[in-house]
Amino acid sequence: MAVVGGSRVRALRLLFGYGFCARSVAAATPTGPRGLVYEKHGEPAQVLHLKDVALAKLGDSGVHVKMVAAPINPADINMIQGSYGIVADLPAVGGNEGVGQVMDTGNSVTTLKPGDWVIPADGGLGTWRTEAVFDEKTLLKIPPDIPLTCAATLGVNPCTAYRMLSDFETLEPGESVIQNAANSGVGQAVIQIAAAKGIKTINVIRDRPNLQDLVDRLKSLGADYVIAEETLRKPEMKELFKEIPKPSLALNGVGGKSATELMRHLRHSGTMVTYGGMSKQPVTVPVSALIFKNVNVRGFWMTQWKRDNAHSKEKLEIMIAELCTLIRKGQLVAPVCREVPLADYQAALKVSQEPYVSVKQILRM
Amino acid sequence: MAVVGGSRVRALRLLFGYGFCARSVAAATPTGPRGLVYEKHGEPAQVLHLKDVALAKLGDSGVHVKMVAAPINPADINMIQGSYGIVADLPAVGGNEGVGQVMDTGNSVTTLKPGDWVIPADGGLGTWRTEAVFDEKTLLKIPPDIPLTCAATLGVNPCTAYRMLSDFETLEPGESVIQNAANSGVGQAVIQIAAAKGIKTINVIRDRPNLQDLVDRLKSLGADYVIAEETLRKPEMKELFKEIPKPSLALNGVGGKSATELMRHLRHSGTMVTYGGMSKQPVTVPVSALIFKNVNVRGFWMTQWKRDNAHSKEKLEIMIAELCTLIRKGQLVAPVCREVPLADYQAALKVSQEPYVSVKQILRM
Repeated sequence: MAVVGGSRVRALRLLFGYGFCARSVAAATPTGPRGLVYEKHGEPAQVLHLKDVALAKLGDSGVHVKMVAAPINPADINMIQGSYGIVADLPAVGGNEGVGQVMDTGNSVTTLKPGDWVIPADGGLGTWRTEAVFDEKTLLKIPPDIPLTCAATLGVNPCTAYRMLSDFETLEPGESVIQNAANSGVGQAVIQIAAAKGIKTINVIRDRPNLQDLVDRLKSLGADYVIAEETLRKPEMKELFKEIPKPSLALNGVGGKSATELMRHLRHSGTMVTYGGMSKQPVTVPVSALIFKNVNVRGFWMTQWKRDNAHSKEKLEIMIAELCTLIRKGQLVAPVCREVPLADYQAALKVSQEPYVSVKQILRM
Repeated sequence: MAVVGGSRVRALRLLFGYGFCARSVAAATPTGPRGLVYEKHGEPAQVLHLKDVALAKLGDSGVHVKMVAAPINPADINMIQGSYGIVADLPAVGGNEGVGQVMDTGNSVTTLKPGDWVIPADGGLGTWRTEAVFDEKTLLKIPPDIPLTCAATLGVNPCTAYRMLSDFETLEPGESVIQNAANSGVGQAVIQIAAAKGIKTINVIRDRPNLQDLVDRLKSLGADYVIAEETLRKPEMKELFKEIPKPSLALNGVGGKSATELMRHLRHSGTMVTYGGMSKQPVTVPVSALIFKNVNVRGFWMTQWKRDNAHSKEKLEIMIAELCTLIRKGQLVAPVCREVPLADYQAALKVSQEPYVSVKQILRM
């Protein structure tokens, strides 16, 4: 079993975290390395501060990276609040995702060279900073021709969508998948990857102001059906399933009633995969669904997958290459993004936690 | 996918059900064929009546069976109430399990001969009757040297326990399994089959009068640990897990809080299998257990397994042979039974639905 949680983060930090072994390197920014640091868990707006962050020694396997852009994801918020599956040793730098450019490499580094573009191959690196020294094995090279916002948001949400569509049920073209949180980063990636594979998507969103605008936008991404949550309980679902087969896969980013409703529409022996719990409610499964309908209730966590596959980057590289192909073809676009200078992180944090946010906040270093 | 539910029951009844094609056969009982018939769904005590039941024609593939003993299981009650996964066409005979002896066979029957002992190979046959004509493929031959109560209760609970211990997690000797409803028919079979394989069992029971008597009895069956439900939330669980490894398999016959508590003690990537819902409460799964602990939440239904494997009886025969070997060695005994004449079915139904029942009611024909 892969190393999980704090111990791994702790080990990485001992090697590469800020605050140790301060080493003078060519400054990537006029002001020197800075980052969004938290010294205790709590609400990000309260506990995060933009501070100078000393660089670790390059060492043999270190890679000096100038971070360029890093998104604010719900998981980043939860990690700072202390309610995520990994907990960093404090003080820590926030952020799990992002894209940067290699400036220098240690003597034993073979897979990366200065000028390469990289994204994290593991969670918990702390990407909300201007530069850092990371270990070679925690980084993944990506092609240079990928738009910046796509690159910055490639490693978590599209990968989560890709794996959930691949690893639980065998979906042939024409078959269907149902998901809630269809407007989330994962949800939008599911729509696009499924559409590229010819898989039909039934996308559930919460009712909201300007619902039709969102319906139109998700349809423009390739969504086959976009329905409000209330519709899941209505007879019109029967009409829908005259057009397409019932789904063998349900993807749940919400929990609570929404998850139970999704499950009701699964076909016999189908699987519901939970990757998020926006409602803060558990997943409630009727006993009859488990026994008589043989529903499988599973979970997925990209961080764990990366760790389980850390012995070889091959599967990760294949996935990233396929996703980059979709990006080049225009079949996978980044969520609507708003780039915010690192110094304006408070405004970005605020927007990222508002309800019905459809715009991903990207910190620019 | 196997034929599920009413349609299969319907098809069987068209061929072999009572009330059709009345045929004069040598009467097995002085009064002629009788059975516990329900004409509508409801409480068994109200809707079941002991009635004359005409035999179907023997036909080419029919097997005339004199039923000898049949238990009252919770699933039988639920099926009569109309809340089970299969619904019989009405009127129907109650009972899904039991043992009988072959009296006569149709011309094309090759696997059975008069004098053989048989149990149902499928659910929904209606076993609470003195005799019936069943199709050859719905019956399974068992050895003649198995005690009657073991034979009558072999086809559902021990098979459910056997499959749940085999089909979800690979359990090596010394590893552990946790279960609630440890005193149920399935629970007792789990204890004994696991003990025979060297698998440690943690058995959860509800607090009750004379708790220690039950603890002693389950330990005499081979239970390693027997604990009251309240103990699941107490620090002494930590002490327990200093002695044996955390379980990779949890077996849930209760649902509700009991299931959630079981799940908390599973190891990372473990599986909880639900086979019953005595509490009438759904299974509630924290989102964090799915995402961060990768818990798999599954269900098992012996009836479905038999149907999924109906194309060949080989797996079923292997399982029955292994269970009969355990019975002969004294490693698998029937639950404590009370034999009740068919005519006294009302008393047996009443006792079977009382709380904390530790005695299985067996109808004798």
